[in-house]
Order: sequence, then structure tokens, then C-alpha cells
Amino acid sequence: MNTTSFFGDMLQAITDRGRRLLSFGPRNEDENPLSTMEMLCETLLSSRGEASGMALATDILAGWQRLDAAQQKAFMHMLLTRFGPKTDRLEKAIDNYRSNPSPKALLELHFASEPRRQELIRRFNLAPNGVASLVRMREALLGIKASDRDLEAVDADFAHLFGSWFNRGFLMLRSINWSTPANILEKIIRYEAVHHIGSWDELRLRLAPDDRRCFAFFHPQLVDDPLIFVEVALTQEIPANIAGLLREERAEIHAKEATTAVFYSISNCQDGLRGISFGNFLIKQVVQDLRRDLPKLETFVTLSPVPAFAAWLAKERDNDASDVLSATDKAKLAALDQPEWWNDDALCEQIRPIITMAAAWYFLKARNSEAKVIDPVARFHLGNGARLERINFLADRSPRALKQSFGLMVNYLYKLDDIETNHEAFAARNEVVAAQTIRKLVPTDKAPKNLIALPQALIATQAKDEQKTNSSKEFHA
Amino acid sequence: MNTTSFFGDMLQAITDRGRRLLSFGPRNEDENPLSTMEMLCETLLSSRGEASGMALATDILAGWQRLDAAQQKAFMHMLLTRFGPKTDRLEKAIDNYRSNPSPKALLELHFASEPRRQELIRRFNLAPNGVASLVRMREALLGIKASDRDLEAVDADFAHLFGSWFNRGFLMLRSINWSTPANILEKIIRYEAVHHIGSWDELRLRLAPDDRRCFAFFHPQLVDDPLIFVEVALTQEIPANIAGLLREERAEIHAKEATTAVFYSISNCQDGLRGISFGNFLIKQVVQDLRRDLPKLETFVTLSPVPAFAAWLAKERDNDASDVLSATDKAKLAALDQPEWWNDDALCEQIRPIITMAAAWYFLKARNSEAKVIDPVARFHLGNGARLERINFLADRSPRALKQSFGLMVNYLYKLDDIETNHEAFAARNEVVAAQTIRKLVPTDKAPKNLIALPQALIATQAKDEQKTNSSKEFHA
Amino acid sequence: MNTTSFFGDMLQAITDRGRRLLSFGPRNEDENPLSTMEMLCETLLSSRGEASGMALATDILAGWQRLDAAQQKAFMHMLLTRFGPKTDRLEKAIDNYRSNPSPKALLELHFASEPRRQELIRRFNLAPNGVASLVRMREALLGIKASDRDLEAVDADFAHLFGSWFNRGFLMLRSINWSTPANILEKIIRYEAVHHIGSWDELRLRLAPDDRRCFAFFHPQLVDDPLIFVEVALTQEIPANIAGLLREERAEIHAKEATTAVFYSISNCQDGLRGISFGNFLIKQVVQDLRRDLPKLETFVTLSPVPAFAAWLAKERDNDASDVLSATDKAKLAALDQPEWWNDDALCEQIRPIITMAAAWYFLKARNSEAKVIDPVARFHLGNGARLERINFLADRSPRALKQSFGLMVNYLYKLDDIETNHEAFAARNEVVAAQTIRKLVPTDKAPKNLIALPQALIATQAKDEQKTNSSKEFHA
Amino acid sequence: MNTTSFFGDMLQAITDRGRRLLSFGPRNEDENPLSTMEMLCETLLSSRGEASGMALATDILAGWQRLDAAQQKAFMHMLLTRFGPKTDRLEKAIDNYRSNPSPKALLELHFASEPRRQELIRRFNLAPNGVASLVRMREALLGIKASDRDLEAVDADFAHLFGSWFNRGFLMLRSINWSTPANILEKIIRYEAVHHIGSWDELRLRLAPDDRRCFAFFHPQLVDDPLIFVEVALTQEIPANIAGLLREERAEIHAKEATTAVFYSISNCQDGLRGISFGNFLIKQVVQDLRRDLPKLETFVTLSPVPAFAAWLAKERDNDASDVLSATDKAKLAALDQPEWWNDDALCEQIRPIITMAAAWYFLKARNSEAKVIDPVARFHLGNGARLERINFLADRSPRALKQSFGLMVNYLYKLDDIETNHEAFAARNEVVAAQTIRKLVPTDKAPKNLIALPQALIATQAKDEQKTNSSKEFHA
Repeated sequence: MNTTSFFGDMLQAITDRGRRLLSFGPRNEDENPLSTMEMLCETLLSSRGEASGMALATDILAGWQRLDAAQQKAFMHMLLTRFGPKTDRLEKAIDNYRSNPSPKALLELHFASEPRRQELIRRFNLAPNGVASLVRMREALLGIKASDRDLEAVDADFAHLFGSWFNRGFLMLRSINWSTPANILEKIIRYEAVHHIGSWDELRLRLAPDDRRCFAFFHPQLVDDPLIFVEVALTQEIPANIAGLLREERAEIHAKEATTAVFYSISNCQDGLRGISFGNFLIKQVVQDLRRDLPKLETFVTLSPVPAFAAWLAKERDNDASDVLSATDKAKLAALDQPEWWNDDALCEQIRPIITMAAAWYFLKARNSEAKVIDPVARFHLGNGARLERINFLADRSPRALKQSFGLMVNYLYKLDDIETNHEAFAARNEVVAAQTIRKLVPTDKAPKNLIALPQALIATQAKDEQKTNSSKEFHA
Repeated sequence: MNTTSFFGDMLQAITDRGRRLLSFGPRNEDENPLSTMEMLCETLLSSRGEASGMALATDILAGWQRLDAAQQKAFMHMLLTRFGPKTDRLEKAIDNYRSNPSPKALLELHFASEPRRQELIRRFNLAPNGVASLVRMREALLGIKASDRDLEAVDADFAHLFGSWFNRGFLMLRSINWSTPANILEKIIRYEAVHHIGSWDELRLRLAPDDRRCFAFFHPQLVDDPLIFVEVALTQEIPANIAGLLREERAEIHAKEATTAVFYSISNCQDGLRGISFGNFLIKQVVQDLRRDLPKLETFVTLSPVPAFAAWLAKERDNDASDVLSATDKAKLAALDQPEWWNDDALCEQIRPIITMAAAWYFLKARNSEAKVIDPVARFHLGNGARLERINFLADRSPRALKQSFGLMVNYLYKLDDIETNHEAFAARNEVVAAQTIRKLVPTDKAPKNLIALPQALIATQAKDEQKTNSSKEFHA
Repeated sequence: MNTTSFFGDMLQAITDRGRRLLSFGPRNEDENPLSTMEMLCETLLSSRGEASGMALATDILAGWQRLDAAQQKAFMHMLLTRFGPKTDRLEKAIDNYRSNPSPKALLELHFASEPRRQELIRRFNLAPNGVASLVRMREALLGIKASDRDLEAVDADFAHLFGSWFNRGFLMLRSINWSTPANILEKIIRYEAVHHIGSWDELRLRLAPDDRRCFAFFHPQLVDDPLIFVEVALTQEIPANIAGLLREERAEIHAKEATTAVFYSISNCQDGLRGISFGNFLIKQVVQDLRRDLPKLETFVTLSPVPAFAAWLAKERDNDASDVLSATDKAKLAALDQPEWWNDDALCEQIRPIITMAAAWYFLKARNSEAKVIDPVARFHLGNGARLERINFLADRSPRALKQSFGLMVNYLYKLDDIETNHEAFAARNEVVAAQTIRKLVPTDKAPKNLIALPQALIATQAKDEQKTNSSKEFHA
Repeated sequence: MNTTSFFGDMLQAITDRGRRLLSFGPRNEDENPLSTMEMLCETLLSSRGEASGMALATDILAGWQRLDAAQQKAFMHMLLTRFGPKTDRLEKAIDNYRSNPSPKALLELHFASEPRRQELIRRFNLAPNGVASLVRMREALLGIKASDRDLEAVDADFAHLFGSWFNRGFLMLRSINWSTPANILEKIIRYEAVHHIGSWDELRLRLAPDDRRCFAFFHPQLVDDPLIFVEVALTQEIPANIAGLLREERAEIHAKEATTAVFYSISNCQDGLRGISFGNFLIKQVVQDLRRDLPKLETFVTLSPVPAFAAWLAKERDNDASDVLSATDKAKLAALDQPEWWNDDALCEQIRPIITMAAAWYFLKARNSEAKVIDPVARFHLGNGARLERINFLADRSPRALKQSFGLMVNYLYKLDDIETNHEAFAARNEVVAAQTIRKLVPTDKAPKNLIALPQALIATQAKDEQKTNSSKEFHA
């Protein structure tokens, strides 16, 4: 699989052509760009790469950006096939290990099984702004991979390196406010994924008032580009709907008088970092920092969407054997089919108790085919150790929210002393910790639907998948 | 080899004991600290580690610092034996790979062969100042490992992670000058390894004048602690001795009038980062930055010690069949045995040509038992692509220099256009590129002493060892 | 005039009431706020002011903001009548000076004639954000003074102190760009006085492209609030109209390729600093900085409005004995009375030569009743040493420009080597330095209209008034 | 007195010679440098100064530095005689004011009596680093003035402007610690005027430990040069001697556990700012900041020298009619004449009560010929509103302290609630507020020695002189 010796002549050509420190300059347009790229990559991995690594890496990353979609796909396949491990070394390492499984043999086996592209990607990072370019490269790879599962192995190498480079220990928490540079703020507008920011004036309403906060994680090599951010409202009670938080004419309070911090929006910013988990750390760090600066704060809570509720409820309404909804319930819920039902107070009051009860069931008892809690946002917060605190009927009247959840929102409560227990309950035993008021809405004798025969293996798998899911583009808070 | 299930009871104890976010607080003194540490490490790797990672990592790193030398050694052996790969998963992965060597099987093999301690060390980094603590932990490990080669495998995991974390792409070049904070400057005094800095006044002479510069690499997570630094003198000619550069009453010039930048001292700062190479990148980056700021600079050169010359010369003097020294030469070199010979001008003139000739031989022809250039400083600069430019007789009269090299120093020239060719010549063909004046000192018909029967394998090894040697504590410039 | 002793009792009341370092807290609402303010001011000037100056100043400035318009006016009159000089000391100083005009007597005369309010205002500055509060206080004073000329003397004291505090030596030039904090950028939007900035997107077009620059002066005590700023376009030729600079779809160039820097908008920001001149220094500093960073820049030029042209032309059209316009000219200029004449190309071509000729006359020959150049923007730039470089017909089609100048704009050229000569010609001899192409448009045998019998005294006055005029709210570039 | 017209020809010469923005370059060496300087100063004040002010100011300040001592003195006399007010304008202003003392006439009188050199000095500030140059210029002036009292008037103008420019509102408090740049720290070493700092290691002991603090005022235009600084020790009791604070092996405490902040050294840094008072503000600001950061701090106290005590005691020992010392006291005090009496414990115990009693008298009753408290350090702290808290026998065994005060030190206590009352008592009624333990040492029936017939006028003078004295080079804390 190794092809180093194959490139002798072409390498010499490169060497002769020029030797600038920072770049070898543009290539001849006649050349097959992929051959050139492969040659450059081999050179970068060779001993010559030590002398001219920065120039080579710069050329490769610049070359990548000139590739069209088909060529980018071909480049990724080249990484897959040409830059895997050296197979002979690997075979020998396996043999050695099997004959004598010493630590040294293990070590060699691990190194021998490391695809050469891992070191290659590390060396790409020698280029100026290498990290940013590599994040964008993986963003492209994720797109390609969606229809080309062979590239999973290449993506695994990117993910592995990014997991190391974007380790929590390297992230910096920064406050985002109205004194933040505009080039960062325009990214906040662009990346906001939960409650759309329509203009700079709307942004100002979320950042400038004394009772609003925003925090983001940054990486030292991506100085102007946040990785994830959370928007916080400081209040004196747990809010029951989003409009009250976002409306322009609301009554502002002094931050020092606030008792409650509401995380009402969390957005991941970098598609290329999918699967690298930050949200968990972000929320906990922000809780810590807020408590230190504003000692009166006692309650840390989200106001979160319930994106999969409407779809689940539809199924239950169609389900003749529904455990959740009685025939009467179903009849009343017909109201949901009326246009603008949410503007009809009488209708609303009629369905409120049914929706609320169903939602409790949805969180506490309903499970998907993998025996997991259905709602992805719930999985994120419960997996972080939060507890389900309150169900808010018709709390978001935006078209998207009405469609996803009939406007339903919930609060997840972060109580530092309970985080670990809650997390354990959820991660190890699949239990959803919820406030008593919610638990009472659901009959206790009925066991969670799909959980009964749940094999232990599934639970283990779940914990792992959880981690991936948590890192999807959008953490609806 | 995996012991996860073993700890159920103890884990519960931890869980019950307390759940603070940042630390679980001090342990009971009765406990065996190593058992506790192992338990904490297992927990950190478990799903609970996701909820309380920061607290666990903080406790472990704090606990490590309380261990005595024997316990630290035991801790490292615990990492070796308890936190290797999961053997059953690995066996299965090998089997799968052998039956179907697909990319996916390869990937699984690579992950399955990764020792669990790699992920563990990554999670240690969740603690505040995790990176700094881990660098110090490895510093201790290197000391332990010197007499305990089993721990090589553990060190390999540290080195692997550090190689990724201290990738050139993450390093920041900063100018060190007289406006630099004192807490950083005192580290420059402490870390200077080539020409001792005796006081703050001496430091000032190296930093404050307009014709002096100093640059260091920093890592974002080690803000006040340089990784490596280089001291530079701006001059109008290539200096022939160190005293002229360091003396207090010298004539200062304006930086803008300088034509030559002299790298007269390079020091690595962090023992814990041994083997992670920075010096190569540092010199090249400094050359670039200086050229940009001071366009008149044309020559980039070192003034470097020759630490292994005296020992080699002693052997040649004792060697009756020396190719290097004639009987007459040897007779004249008896002068070196006279006390304070260096203060006797007549003696000096007598031995100057012999020393100079011998030095040329030492660099160009003499080789060690591994067929490498003998001098470690030469290997560093030649490996970086510099060329040997000039041999300076009696250029450093400090006791150490007189002992190591009879006061000999040399200049290595960094010419950007030639760096790659020079590097190739040295790395691939073991050739030392030197100025014509030096080459002429050595008869060309004689082949390098040890090179004649050199097996190809040795040369290959050399390139690899080179990399390690370059990163020794002290890069005499 | 001095009333110190008058306040004994009330002072004691203050002393008894509380002694906090930073503020004495809110007053009793029953009190006459002006009596309280007067008492606080006296205390601040007294020896007690030395011990509690910060608290007193804070209370006074906070109290001022609670005054209504009538009270603010009364406060200013209090400063005028109660905080003038001590008359007996002044009388004695005059007598001493007249009997023996020694330097010492002069010094005492100067100090004795200093109104006590000057020291009072200096002590107001002890309050946190004192400078900002005082600038706003003077802004209010300027409004009051407009209809109450007695307060001229109070304003003179503010102006005197501000002249010292906002001395060029204390101002910092900062680049304003898309990385500037949003709270400063929103002030740029608000303060822009020449070419309206309609939105953040428009602002971005003026700051973010590589061929756009913006610079502002800041004062160390007004960190987030610019004093004056200039917007610059980098081009390859002198622009003939504003639309080409501001339009979104224009072709951007690399800053390094630009040969010409165009100052197309200068705005003063602080009404309270009226009469303190910054624009002159700003332009020259920006020229210097741009030349240093972009050595290819050769031409520094404005694109400026001509705000008083239309009014002057109207008078000439009505003037039967106009030296400027012939009967034919007047007939053709009837086109200006047609609606949207500027969209009729034929009409435009018909009037272009007449407007251009008239404009040359307007600058070179026409003078106002004080024998000065009529156009205030011209007075600013010519007074700075620029020369009139080009007249641009129909260069700004905004409603305001069409009304003020029939869309006419001009370029003033800043050539560093000529600045002093040009300034001298204008300041001392009332001469307008203009490009040859402009001078040729005007018959040379006719002397400037009002200049003929100009008494020398008027010219002297002019230079002084000039200085004031330069600092009006809006420096149309 | 005005000579503007005199320079026509020479001005033209300047104008012709060159017109660079930043400097007109070096002068011809043949020229009389003072004539040139005068001409440049006149030009800077002229209208041409508006166009080329920065270049002119730069040349003048550079020229000043090339003057020798005699020329600098001549330059100052030139400022005195050539740049006073315009006498004719002043005469007219006096006449107008006498005929109609309107606010406008007063204003004109004030402006007309302002020496032209005030505006000249303001324009000097246009030069880069103008403020720093002017502070050094005044430092020279103070030296010249010492033997040339005519220049008092020139110094008054510098002092007046500096009073405005170095207004408290413009000063920035910065913490000085071990992370402060070395170029600032070396100034702390140099400027320390109370307890000598012998080396960087000693400096480190005062800055780096957790229970040590240092704060300085900076001016925005003197970024690397402190104006005044105070060194603070955080302790758990009021210290009784200096050695305990400064010794290397003392027991360090955590800052958070400290109850007491000890100001043990205050030093003014800029001779050129003599008479501009900062110390008062510095102490109060530091008290505020420390209280905010370390809420456990309750006591703010100095440990101060008593520099005039030994001289006063000598007089009392010689005074046959001393009210302070009895014959017995005097006999016992003969011990002070023994060499190294301070090392003889028995002797020390013998004289301790007498010294302590005499010190109480020295502070509470003894007054100088102007009826003021004798000790300058006492005047500073009591004038700031501190109270005399404790007398410490043999608290500083340094040679200087033994000579000045037989090693006596005292504590002054800063209690925020009492500062204003204390200040009033001292400033208005000449009363020294002291702790009861000190008051009891002095018989109450005896009135302060020189105070009995004290005319009111003297007290008033005192307050004024006080202000000057407070600003002497050295504020022994």
C-alpha cells in the first residue's frame, strides 16, 4: 500500500522547481492536480517534509481549495487508499504481538496500524491557518461521506485528531457582548440555530442589556470564529415561554438582582467539528462563571424546544392501541387540525391538559427503536445531568415550533450537586430524572413501552451513540 | 487486561462521597493512594467521567503531585499494566482484519490497539492547567524511565499526544525583550543553556539594545512559560568569537544598519517535551520575521559551540595510526597540555592551523560508530539545512568551551534558497555541506573514515535517531 | 463675589450626613437642588474638597443630570456669578502690576483673574467618567448659550480646559474596521454626518473591504467614543463622484495596488467639543500612517461637498450685474429649475461648462462679507494646506447634495511638501491655491470681488475665526 | 514685549529650507542655537504653526536636548522675557475691566494676562512623546530655578499646565507585580525612595508573594513610566517594625486571610512633576480596590519613618528649658551617644519610655516656626485624613533611620469613615488626631508650644504650603 519509492522522479522535479520557504508557488495547469497533490503529500511525509513542511502544507491546502467536487472526492479516496498504514510493517507487528504480547509489541502494533494519513493531516497543520483549513476540509468530507460510506475511515482519522486538538483543555471561554468585534458578532447572527436573529438590532437586544449574557468557546487557532455559543437571560423566575424573553419592550432588570439564569439557545458553529462535543463543558463552565460573578443566582435552567414531539404525537393519535391517548383525548386533539388553533383561547384550554400529559409520557416513558429517549434535545441535557423541570404549553408560537411540537417547550434544570447522579441514572440506567409535578402526570404502573425486554448490550451502545448525537449541528437548548 | 468491572464498590463510594464540579476534595489519608488513583482513573474513563470529568481530572493531577517517588513509579506501572488496550477487543480486531483487511477493519484494529491510557491522558487535560501538569508529569516519567525501560510504552503515549498538542500549528512566536514581563524573563535566565546569564543586568544586555533580539515559541496553554528560545545579535559581519557579542562595552549599532543576524544561543525549556522538535521551526520563523522587519539583513548565521571536538581530538592524538594528525602535528599539539595555553599568543599561532585543519576533518570526514556526524550541534543545524560556514579558533574562552572544544566555535549559515538541498544532502546521503574554505582544508581523496562499509540500514536509522537527538535539552546554537 | 464663608452651616450638614469616599448619596428631595449644588461646589473648592474630592465631584455630576432645563441654565448662571475670580484679590493684583510690572506681579494677575470655576471644573474631573460627563455638560451649555450670550464667559472656561485636555498630544489614532467592537461601530453609524450610513450592511461595505479604511481619534478617558473620524477609499485614480465609491457592486482592489487615498467623509462626533480642532491633525496623521503602510500611495485627496454653492449661485442668477454669469449663462441655467434635470443628459451637458466655470469663480474669486472664501469646507481644507484640485460636475445625486450644490463635488489635494506654503498663502494672504485647470476657467484680470479694499485687520480676524469654524459639527470632507 | 514681526526674514528661511511633516531636520551648526529656538517658537505660535506644528515642536524639543546647561538657562530666560503676555493687549484689558467689570471684560483680562509661553508649551506637546519631554524639561528648570528665582514665573506656567494634564481624572491605577514588564520594574527599583531595593531578587520579594502588593499611577502619555507608587504588605496585625515585613524568610500568608493592609513605602517618581499631588488619591484608590478584592481587610495603616525626629530631639536635649525632657530624661538619653546603643537591650529598655513619650510630644505639641507639625511625613498623612495610630520604638535599624529618628517609626491609620473629619481637624484647626494611647503619653494641660499666639493668617498659609510639601520627591510612607 505504500508508494513512497514510486515518486522519485516527480519529487526531483519539485525540488528543482523552486525552494521557497512558504510556498512552491502555483503548479503548471497541465498537470493532473490529483497526481500533484499525491506527490506533494508523499513529499510532506518524507524527510524532505521536515525541511520544507510549511511550504508543502501551504501548497497542499491551497491546492485542495482549487479542486472541484469530483476531485475533492478523489482526493479523499487517495487518502483512503494511498495513505493507509504500511501493510508489511503492520503484518509483522501483528505477528510479533501474537508471538509475544509485550507492551513494546503492543505499542508497535498501535503505531503500525495508524494510517499514514494521520501524520499527513498533522503536517497539513504546518500551513498558516492550518486548523481552520482542516476544519473546512472535514466539512467537505462529511458532505462527501454521506453518500460514500467507504470514506468513514478517513473521517475517523480527522475526528480522532480533532478530538485531540479541540480537547476541552485547549478551549477558551469568552463573553460575547456588545463590545465584541463586529466580525465575530456577524458570525453569531449567522450561526444562531434555535431562535433566528433577524438583524443587528435584534442581536443588540440579546447582548447589550444588563440582564442578557452570551458565552462562546474559542480555539486559540480560530481566533475570530466561535465553536459553540450559548445565550443566557437573567431573570427572577423560570420563564414559561420564549416571547417574553425576546420581546423588545420587556422590563429589564439589573443583573445583580437576578436569581435565575436561563439558557435559551445553544448553537454549534462549525460543521467540520461534528461529533466533537463541547456543549456539555460550555454549560457547566458558564454556570460556574455566572455563579462567581453574580452570587445571587440560584437557579440554572434552560428553555428548550421539543423537536420530535409533534411527530410522536401524530403516531399516537393514529395508534388505535395507544397507551397514551384515550379516545376522548384523541377527539379533543382534533382541535390541533384547525387553522390557527393557537389563537383560540377556548380550544387551547381544552387541549392543554392532554398535551401536557402526553408530553410527560413522551419524556418519561416513550422510547425509540433503540430504547432511547426520543427527543434529541432531551438526550443532550439529560445526558449532561440536567433534570426535566417543567413542561410549558404553547411556549413558542413560531411556525417552526408549532410544527415541531405544537409550540411546546420545556425547562431542563442544572443543579450542580445533582448533575452526576442524574447523569448516572440516565447513562447507566436509562432513567429520566424529572420534577415531581411531571412524574405525577404519568401513571406509574406502566413500564416504559420499549424498555421491557431491553438487552444490556443496547444500553451500552446507547451511551456511545449518545455522545455522537449530542454533537449534532444544532443543540436546541 | 481490562479491569473496569472490578471497581464497582469503590466507585459507588466515590459517587456517594461528594459531587462537586471542580473537585471531590482531599481523600481520606488512610487509603492507599494508588488504589484511589486507579479508581479515579477508571471513573474518569467511564461514562461518569463525562459528567464530572473536570473534577476527576483535577483530583487525579493534584493526587499525583502528592505521590512520593516510589508511588509515582508505581503509578506509571499502573498506567502500563492496567490501562493498556482491551485485549479481547484487540484480538477480535486482529482476527477481523486478517480475514478481511478492509479500511473499516483496519480502523478498528488501530483503535483497538490504542492503549486506554491515551484517552485517559487526554481526559487529564480537562483539569485547569492540565497541559502544564502533564508536561511536568512526563518530566518525572523521563527520570523514572531512565532506569526502567518497561515504561517506554507509557512514555510513547505521552510523546504521541504531545506531538499532536504541540504541533507547530499551535505554537506562537513571541518577541522577548526588555518589555517582557519579569516572570517570563526569569525563566529565560533559568533556561539559558549555552552562554550562562549571570544576572538581570546581563540579561538586559542581551535584550534591551537595539541590535539584540530574542524570540520564543509559546503554547496557548502555557502562557508564561516558553518552550524554546533563540538569542540573536544583529551585526555587520559574521562574528568570529562570542566575547565580542556579549561584552558590555561593545559598540552598539542601529538594527536598521545590520546586515547579519547571528543566532548565538538556542535553548529548549521544557524537559517534559523532550523529543518534540521545535528548534527547526523556530529558526526558520525567526529568519522570516527578521527579513520582513529589517530588509537589509542578508546573512543568517549561527555562532555555535562544538561540544564533542576535544574528546575526538584526544582520541586522534592517542591514535598512532591517525589519518588526521601527523607526528609533527601531535608534537605541536602538546601545547594544549600547558596551563593557560590560550593566553600565550605564540603557542596559539603555532596550533591554530592544526586545530583548524583537524576541525574540518572532524566535521567533514569523522563519523561515529553509527556512521553519523559526531557533533550533536552539527547534526541539528545540518539536519535543518544549514551549511558549515566558518571555523573559529579560540572563539570562546569560557572554561566549559575550553574543555569541550579548546575554545573552538563554528558558524552555520542558513540560506533559505539552499535549505532544502542541504537538508536532503545530509538526511538522505549523509553529506555535510560546507564552505569551500573549509573543504579545502581536508584532502579529498580520503573517504569519510567510518563510512566505507556503511550498511544502508544504518543510514535509515540515523535519520530517525537524528530527530530524537535534535530535541535534547540543549541546542547549543 | 466670593461667598465661601456664607455656607458654614450647610457645610456642616453635609459633613454630618455621611462621609463615604465615593458619594454622599442622594440628597433630600425637599432641598433646593441649586442651593445644594452651590454648596457642594464651594465645598469641592475648599480644603475639604482635597479629602473628599471624588465623592463631591461624583455627587455634583450626578446632581447635574437630575436638573431640568431651567435648573441647568440657573446652574450655569451660578457658575458665572458665584464662581468668577475673587475681585479683591484681582484688584490688588492689578494695582501691584501697574506699580511694578514684574513677572511675579504678572503671574499673580493672571492667576487672580482666573475664574474660580476653572479650578472647579478641573475638580469635577475627579469623578469617575468625569471627562465624559463634562463634555456632555458643555454640550448642554452650548445649547443654553445660543440664546443667552452672557454665558459666553462660562463656555470660554470650558473651552479653555478642553483645549488643554484634548491637546493633540493626548489623542490616540485608532483604525476602525470590521474587527472593531460593535459599541464603537454603532457610534460611527450615528455620527456619520456627510454620507449617511443606512444599515450595518452599508457600514460593512465601508470598513471590511481591503480597499477601504477608517481612522478615528480617541481620548484615553473616552475609550469607547470617537472624537472625529475619517473614511478613506483606496483607489487607482482620483474619483469624480461619490456613487462609484459607495456602490456595493464595485470592483474591489488590493490595498497594495492602490495609488490614491481618497478622504470622502470626515465627521466630528462630540458636540461638547465644538471649537476644539482635530480634523487638521487627523488628516495629516492618516496620510503619514497610510504612506508608511502602503508605500505605493502617492496621491492623497478628498472628495468633498460644496455646501454653500447653490445659495451663492442663486444670488448670482438674480444679480443683474453679475460678474460671473452672462445673460446666456443665466438662460441656460434655467434648466436647473426643471424637475429631475439631472436625469436629462442633454440638459446636463448644456449646463456643465457654466456650472464648472461658476464653481471656479466661487472658490477663487467670490468672497463673503468678511472677505473670506464662502465655502466652509473649502476654508477647512485650504486652511489645512490642501489645494483645490478638481471640480466634479454632478458628482453626488443625493437630495441634499442636489439642493446644496446641484450635485457638485470637488477634490482637495493634500501634498505634504506644499502644505505649509499653501497654508501660508491662504492664512496670511487669503489666496486659494488651485490646480491650473481650475485657474484657467476664471479670467485673471478680474480681482476677487470683495478683496480689493480689504483692510489688513479683517484678514487677521479671519485667521482666528477660521479656527472656530473648522470645528463645526460637520466637516464635510 | 511681543516680537513677532521681528523675525520675518528668518521665518522665510525656515520655510524655504524644508517642509517635512515631522521634522525640519538638523540646523546649520553655525547658527546661534538660541536664536534658532526663539525663531522656531515664534513660528510655532504663528498661524504657520497650525500647519506644521508637529514638525516645529519636534525640532524644538530635539533642539532643547542639544543645549548645554548655560544655553538651557538662557532658553528659560527667553521664555520669561520673550513669551510673556502681550503688554499692550493686557493694558487695554485692564482699562476695559476697570471701566466696566463685566464677565466679558474679566475673561479678556484673564486671557490677556496669560503668558504666551503657556500656549507655546501646549504646542510643544504636539511632538511625539511631548509630555515626557516636557516633564524632563521642567525637571531641568527646577534645577536652574533653585539658584535663579526669576524663573519662578516660568515654572508656574509649567506647573499650571501639568496640574491640568495630570489631573486625577487622567491617571490610571495599575497593579505592579511580577508579571509587569521589566522596563517598568527597573524603574521601581530606581525610584524607590524609602526602603532601598538592592537587587531584582529583593524586588521579587516585594512583588511576587501572595501577601504583597504594589500599585502605581500612570499617565496615558507616559506608558512605561510610573508617576508614584505604593508598596503594600498584607498582614494579620499592624506591624511594629520594618524588618519583619522585608525579611526573606518570613512566613507568607494567603492574601485572602489578611486583615490588615500596610502601606510601607510611597515614592514619587518624576522630579519634573514636583508640586503636582498624587499621593492622596493613590492611597485612597488603593484602599478602595483592596477592599473590593479582599473583603476581609479591615485595617489600612502605614508603617512610616519620622525623618525630622532626631534633629528635634537633639534640640530639646540641648534646651535647658525644655518642656519635654526632664533632667533625668536627658541623663538617660545619653545612652543615644553610645556606639551601637541599639544592640544593647538594657540600654534600649531604659530609653524606650522616654523616646516614646518625646515622640508623642513631637507629633502632638511641637510645632515649627510656621506653627506647623514638624514632621513632613506626618503632615502628608494627617493632611490626607489619617490618624496617628502607634509609635514604634526602634522599628528600623537601617543607618539612615537610626540617624533621622533613632530608628523610630509610626503607623498612620486610614479609616475611610473618619478621613474627612480628620482632614478638617488638621487642615482647618491644626489638630493632630491620634490614638488614645498616644494622647495619654502627653500631659494635656500643656498647650502646643508654638500654637498659643498663632495668628489666623498663618494657619491659612499653612494649608497652602502643605499642598506643596506633600509633593516632594519622597513621600516616606
